[in-house]
Amino acid sequence: MDNRPIGIFDSGVGGLTVMREVMEQLPYENIIYLGDTARIPYGSKSEQTIKKYAHQCSAFLKSKNVKTIVVACNTASSVALDQLTENFDIPVIGVIEPGARSASEVTQTGRIGVIGTTATINSYAYQGKIMEYLSTAEVIGIPCPLFVPIVEEGWEYSQVAVLTAEKYLTELIEHDVDALVLGCTHYPILRHTIKRVLGPGVILVNPAFETAKDLKKLLTEKDLLNENYEKPIYEYYATDAPERLRRIGGNFLKKEIDNLHEIAIDNL
Amino acid sequence: MDNRPIGIFDSGVGGLTVMREVMEQLPYENIIYLGDTARIPYGSKSEQTIKKYAHQCSAFLKSKNVKTIVVACNTASSVALDQLTENFDIPVIGVIEPGARSASEVTQTGRIGVIGTTATINSYAYQGKIMEYLSTAEVIGIPCPLFVPIVEEGWEYSQVAVLTAEKYLTELIEHDVDALVLGCTHYPILRHTIKRVLGPGVILVNPAFETAKDLKKLLTEKDLLNENYEKPIYEYYATDAPERLRRIGGNFLKKEIDNLHEIAIDNL
Repeated sequence: MDNRPIGIFDSGVGGLTVMREVMEQLPYENIIYLGDTARIPYGSKSEQTIKKYAHQCSAFLKSKNVKTIVVACNTASSVALDQLTENFDIPVIGVIEPGARSASEVTQTGRIGVIGTTATINSYAYQGKIMEYLSTAEVIGIPCPLFVPIVEEGWEYSQVAVLTAEKYLTELIEHDVDALVLGCTHYPILRHTIKRVLGPGVILVNPAFETAKDLKKLLTEKDLLNENYEKPIYEYYATDAPERLRRIGGNFLKKEIDNLHEIAIDNL
Repeated sequence: MDNRPIGIFDSGVGGLTVMREVMEQLPYENIIYLGDTARIPYGSKSEQTIKKYAHQCSAFLKSKNVKTIVVACNTASSVALDQLTENFDIPVIGVIEPGARSASEVTQTGRIGVIGTTATINSYAYQGKIMEYLSTAEVIGIPCPLFVPIVEEGWEYSQVAVLTAEKYLTELIEHDVDALVLGCTHYPILRHTIKRVLGPGVILVNPAFETAKDLKKLLTEKDLLNENYEKPIYEYYATDAPERLRRIGGNFLKKEIDNLHEIAIDNL
């Protein structure tokens, strides 16, 4: 057993949806969350820069004595995971692979949709990984740039959200997909609206949920679970504007965020 | 007379709305446009970084032998204008001052709204400048984060745009403003929707238009107008993804974008 915390990082608040799933599935684990809010968004940065940032986030978490690192950011997962696995002597897991694997398992027809930011969809990270698991899959990627600001405004149940989802998702209905990967950490907040637009025939795959499942399996196999069955400690760090993380993040986590600190990591 | 081009820069495509006004009001001027698309958005960066970027953009334009520089970016205008004026030996003008001055002139009641990105509204740049011109003004700033992605999707005439505008602008109607500054380079594209929501009693102030007017005055006074009455040459540069500038930018400029080049400026 191992009572060191789990480290989770993202470029901003979005990764809190991953943290939420980890809290649900591993309720006795201590967790340290880092949002690199000073340098968001990662999606428009070069590969080299994203690798540097992901390294700095991981080095910060490592300095906090975490037992494992969850890369909750889609962009960093697709670009930097291999390098992090090499450079750190603790397990590192990302969100792309669990999401892609689950989509390839739940589909019946092989027609799978992926939605995400423009950067994630253009990177082809989910599409490529799904094809590795299911080479016959037909994968349709749709960038949905309005979804992040809608979620950050707290408008997930608004008519704006419904009309926007209809505009973005019509193509998926036309292609008759039967599974949809929510390929951005913000999107699980919109799942009810997305479900309403797509109808009951489409299974929504939440990479945050799948990642937490993989993490639980990993900790169990490596005998790293915390067997102190006490109320866990959650700590939060932001590289800029911690108040914004607190305000917006509460909606992602469905829980008050306290124990929140501002931190500079660009020298790590 | 002076047939050197006018240089205009912005962090992305938004400044093309400024270029459009300059093209309309100064139809014989050659123009070089630079979109620093590799490093967009400026709004979330530190002041020091924004100053560095603005300097690099200006140095690039200077190297192209421009006779004046228009800072079409709200963030760079509010943070870096003084420094640019000091460091370059050609006139440099920004968008904040012309917009603020016009708002203070057109208002009857002194109740003025300003809309912009979260960064612009929180910087208080327009609000502060308006108060300099009209110390009795009551200025209400509203951040409208969904407007930029709506414009970039080309959804400016959609129901999503109308509903979003209603959500953002209700507070301005309640405060009974009689003038509204469109404090983001993207927003002029949405002016019909904004007008429809606010009704005929509110005058929309477009800083792009006011800036072009000020530029014309400046060039006239300093005897810098191009008196070659020929078809002008327009050149476009982007620091990343020029195709995106071409695709989205056409809607801003109401004109095809050709003569477009990708350029690295981070060593300037």
